[in-house]
Amino acid sequence: MTVNVGVIGAGMIGADHIRRLSTVVTGARVTAVTDIDADRAAVVAAGAGARALDTGQEVIGAADVDAVLVTSWGPAHAESVLGAIAAGKPVFCEKPLATTAEDCLRIIDAETAHGRRLVQVGFMRRYDAGYRAMKEVIDSGEIGDPLMVHCVHRNPAVPERYHSEMATHDTAVHEIDTVRWLLDDEIVSAQVLTPRRTRHRFEHLQDPQIMLFETAGGARVDVEVFVNCQYGYDIQCEAVGETGTVRLPDPSGPVVRTAGRQGSAVLQDWKDRFAAAYDVEIQEWVDAVAADTAAGPSSWDGYAAAVICDANVEALHTGRIVATGLKDRPDFYA
Amino acid sequence: MTVNVGVIGAGMIGADHIRRLSTVVTGARVTAVTDIDADRAAVVAAGAGARALDTGQEVIGAADVDAVLVTSWGPAHAESVLGAIAAGKPVFCEKPLATTAEDCLRIIDAETAHGRRLVQVGFMRRYDAGYRAMKEVIDSGEIGDPLMVHCVHRNPAVPERYHSEMATHDTAVHEIDTVRWLLDDEIVSAQVLTPRRTRHRFEHLQDPQIMLFETAGGARVDVEVFVNCQYGYDIQCEAVGETGTVRLPDPSGPVVRTAGRQGSAVLQDWKDRFAAAYDVEIQEWVDAVAADTAAGPSSWDGYAAAVICDANVEALHTGRIVATGLKDRPDFYA
Amino acid sequence: MTVNVGVIGAGMIGADHIRRLSTVVTGARVTAVTDIDADRAAVVAAGAGARALDTGQEVIGAADVDAVLVTSWGPAHAESVLGAIAAGKPVFCEKPLATTAEDCLRIIDAETAHGRRLVQVGFMRRYDAGYRAMKEVIDSGEIGDPLMVHCVHRNPAVPERYHSEMATHDTAVHEIDTVRWLLDDEIVSAQVLTPRRTRHRFEHLQDPQIMLFETAGGARVDVEVFVNCQYGYDIQCEAVGETGTVRLPDPSGPVVRTAGRQGSAVLQDWKDRFAAAYDVEIQEWVDAVAADTAAGPSSWDGYAAAVICDANVEALHTGRIVATGLKDRPDFYA
Amino acid sequence: MTVNVGVIGAGMIGADHIRRLSTVVTGARVTAVTDIDADRAAVVAAGAGARALDTGQEVIGAADVDAVLVTSWGPAHAESVLGAIAAGKPVFCEKPLATTAEDCLRIIDAETAHGRRLVQVGFMRRYDAGYRAMKEVIDSGEIGDPLMVHCVHRNPAVPERYHSEMATHDTAVHEIDTVRWLLDDEIVSAQVLTPRRTRHRFEHLQDPQIMLFETAGGARVDVEVFVNCQYGYDIQCEAVGETGTVRLPDPSGPVVRTAGRQGSAVLQDWKDRFAAAYDVEIQEWVDAVAADTAAGPSSWDGYAAAVICDANVEALHTGRIVATGLKDRPDFYA
Repeated sequence: MTVNVGVIGAGMIGADHIRRLSTVVTGARVTAVTDIDADRAAVVAAGAGARALDTGQEVIGAADVDAVLVTSWGPAHAESVLGAIAAGKPVFCEKPLATTAEDCLRIIDAETAHGRRLVQVGFMRRYDAGYRAMKEVIDSGEIGDPLMVHCVHRNPAVPERYHSEMATHDTAVHEIDTVRWLLDDEIVSAQVLTPRRTRHRFEHLQDPQIMLFETAGGARVDVEVFVNCQYGYDIQCEAVGETGTVRLPDPSGPVVRTAGRQGSAVLQDWKDRFAAAYDVEIQEWVDAVAADTAAGPSSWDGYAAAVICDANVEALHTGRIVATGLKDRPDFYA
Repeated sequence: MTVNVGVIGAGMIGADHIRRLSTVVTGARVTAVTDIDADRAAVVAAGAGARALDTGQEVIGAADVDAVLVTSWGPAHAESVLGAIAAGKPVFCEKPLATTAEDCLRIIDAETAHGRRLVQVGFMRRYDAGYRAMKEVIDSGEIGDPLMVHCVHRNPAVPERYHSEMATHDTAVHEIDTVRWLLDDEIVSAQVLTPRRTRHRFEHLQDPQIMLFETAGGARVDVEVFVNCQYGYDIQCEAVGETGTVRLPDPSGPVVRTAGRQGSAVLQDWKDRFAAAYDVEIQEWVDAVAADTAAGPSSWDGYAAAVICDANVEALHTGRIVATGLKDRPDFYA
Repeated sequence: MTVNVGVIGAGMIGADHIRRLSTVVTGARVTAVTDIDADRAAVVAAGAGARALDTGQEVIGAADVDAVLVTSWGPAHAESVLGAIAAGKPVFCEKPLATTAEDCLRIIDAETAHGRRLVQVGFMRRYDAGYRAMKEVIDSGEIGDPLMVHCVHRNPAVPERYHSEMATHDTAVHEIDTVRWLLDDEIVSAQVLTPRRTRHRFEHLQDPQIMLFETAGGARVDVEVFVNCQYGYDIQCEAVGETGTVRLPDPSGPVVRTAGRQGSAVLQDWKDRFAAAYDVEIQEWVDAVAADTAAGPSSWDGYAAAVICDANVEALHTGRIVATGLKDRPDFYA
Repeated sequence: MTVNVGVIGAGMIGADHIRRLSTVVTGARVTAVTDIDADRAAVVAAGAGARALDTGQEVIGAADVDAVLVTSWGPAHAESVLGAIAAGKPVFCEKPLATTAEDCLRIIDAETAHGRRLVQVGFMRRYDAGYRAMKEVIDSGEIGDPLMVHCVHRNPAVPERYHSEMATHDTAVHEIDTVRWLLDDEIVSAQVLTPRRTRHRFEHLQDPQIMLFETAGGARVDVEVFVNCQYGYDIQCEAVGETGTVRLPDPSGPVVRTAGRQGSAVLQDWKDRFAAAYDVEIQEWVDAVAADTAAGPSSWDGYAAAVICDANVEALHTGRIVATGLKDRPDFYA
């Protein structure tokens, strides 16, 4: 069976997922595309052999759409996801699930009322081979119960529109989800340290930031976010357990020895770092849809990320330790 | 356009390529399958939604077969490849192209007479990301002109049917092709050193072997083949140029520190090591067929591998340095 | 010229320094030894061909003592150091310089009044080849101005007498000094996070701890202290600058591939990790004494460590961010 | 007890050992120095507080010389070593022990007639921490019985006076001794491959060379010698056993990430690579002399190196596999 996918939002990430569904993933095809820019929708749809439709609601309702992929801008996510749930159709929503915790809860309520999971949220790191191998080590008990996780998230540079809160919402949100998943634990408080700002970027931007999280189980997580580090895209993660440690592998490349140095290239583009993870993510989503099941990051994970990010931004602005105040997880998402 | 592929040979590697064409590669589908075991052909064909046919010739001639994939046993390769050329259909042939240099030359003659390339030979390492990055470094001139290549090919263990000549034909053949491609140079002589045999395997088997090749350009290549090394599947390659060196990256995995040791797993299965390379190889073949072009390892490369392997086996048995006696490469394959 | 050294305190570290002065360092000999355990002093002195004396004051005053090495227990340090200054003799004092900030200030006052530096404090990491190479990179400007330092200090296990404050005074004190030296910057505040305690050790002990420091220049430093990590002695340090990063090298050992794993040993004993640094430290002290100069960690560094440690312990007990309240550094120590 | 050392040969290496004996090693002092350049001997002797003597024979015979260190040029070694044996004094001789196998045998005969070992030959790699750790792994049985050793010896550049035979006598001689020691096995044949010469150096020089050795036990050893590799001083060694491998650790330095690259420095000077090994070597020699014993590389090792080097040079010139024709090792050197 081929899964017919309707796509809401044909921007950069939307177009990339359409390419992925058309030429990388098997078992799916894109049948309908919409975008607030109708011309763009038309071009992208044509490239994929799909129809361009005027609205997300038309996409969701189309008879030849089995499942919906939401890649519009963040504030529009909730409406599309709620629409898909109302139509009983599986929906993949790029992060964030919604831009407010309230909207996330509305989605949770709708999905719970529907009676089975329909929503997968686009936290692609859970599909990265390195993180998966790291989680296997943790789950095996080889390093004992985790007590600490040290994370680093560095980008070579960000554009001027990037502001200090995006260090949480756009950047650290990946570590927030990944750590919750790695530890199978919940984040209960947040604190943000603000080192001296790099002079290589904008005055308005607090960069770097050091984020400190505590989990319900008492583990401590630190996340360095440094989005203008100049030298490359660099993701690091080390979990420290009661009897050992495990470290996320760096991408491997050929080591060159020349002119008194030995070394290798550092990636520059995050898309290169997680390209394979995106492929696996969408393939597993399509497979789950075809199998009439659901897997991967859930609405609950989308809600948790939203609440933790809100607390973290408050921590950034106040300098205080802020409780995340997450609700209890419903059994539905256990 | 979807490329309709007919498969000749539904054994382990054939079935794997059929799965790849059906569920990994885009732009292709398997329409016809044959095998000397008709029952097996029927089962495999059914699983892929294809027809089972009685003979390779029927597959080649089928109207719904645009391109042919040959994964029968080696001695049968030449007939199928020649048949595909006669039918003017693109053909992917797993290594070896043929089991004798004479048959390889017959294929070359037929393809040349046809007037354009139709044949791609299954040397998948050229599609491995690490080797490709290594070749980019060499081609960039960063390490200067290559003078030496050091290769290691280790398997944890081989079955009893594996004999000393297979160290060349089944194992080192990959290094032979890869080094020719990395250096863009031809191998002109071979010598084989025979270390004391490991006691962990069969008396009939000379394992390990050290193979020494010289290229037309004067570079020297050494290949350690050790197929019962016990500890894992381990492929190493270092090119040494006039001003620097480049080394094939090891597969990366999470590093664990526990109980006084730090380390990571070594792969056990060659299929894990080159799984992604196989995917890329078949995708690029399908893409080339769809684009009405040809790329990748050619009949000439298949012929060269055959001739070099023959010389190497003679070197093993005689203890002498054996000239490969390769013909000059026709312009057709330049 | 041979420097005649008198040693006050013949315990484990004292005896080790006596061995070092006698058999590793050149240009020095031990002439006098004292210890509160007179028998021990006699045995150790005899082994080094030195005299055993009854008191530290006698050692300091002895005509055949050019310089004094203080390796008694911490609370006795200040008296010996002050005595040496009063006698105008160079003195090497193992950490801590004194157990209170007040005593450190008394030493600073005495040394300043004397008019030239006499005191070197035993922070041996400044003599480790890896740290020195790291400092060279930072000082070269290659990574730009440092913004963050991430440190890890792990021991396999500690004895029961080790308590939570010792994580600062005995363990993190090394990172505190090293980071001040690496950054050429001062620590102005401290905060301590307390992860869930490992169950592999004593109930009375908060282990691990995460210590957070801010420098006058706005850099942020985090130090993970985990003294019962089970797997080994592991010291890590990464400095992150405005344009790059530099990481302390791990000790190197042979990499073994066997039984599906590749890896190397992790050190178990801190003495192995910094043995060479101790040798260099004492050699450079002896050389400075012989050259009538002073170098290395000063009384000011000893004072700063004491004040920062006090603030850190208060931070541990209160959970608050505690200002270190360091005085301004006198020009004498610039 | 202090060992009084007389030094024959005050050139670069001699002066370095004199510095080492005077300021690094404990338990020794230099009392007498000679050199064919009397002025140089005078200057160096004065710097060490020693006497300058006119001849090596005077040094050997001096009452205040307990042990002799021979660092003259190679052709003069045998006479000094024989003189020391005749005087019954321990002698450390830099490599080569002698420039002909015949002279080595004369030394062996003299030492054997004397009845106990007096001679240590300066193969310093046996004292390198990395090689020692590697030998420990091999001796532990962790990798099984060794079957192959892969060695690399690269220098950034050599001066014009360096000729093709020196690749054996001055360069590979270190690998020859090291491998014999690592494997506790004897080299019985040699072959030399000659890759295309690098254009970065002199026409008269065959560089690189690949040397192939076979041991009595059937192990195979390959040594790449490339003394104008441009990029640095790089020593590699991997032993491959029946169940695993062990690799010599690279020198470790801080890893820097900047400008899209991660990497570390490659050493340029062989003296930096083995400085610590030289210190340990001379210290252990002094300790052995003081303890009236002998250890380390023996006259037999010096003889074996000479014979193997001769065979290797013949192999270079003839292109043939040359048997080393080593005599049987006397029990005296077992």
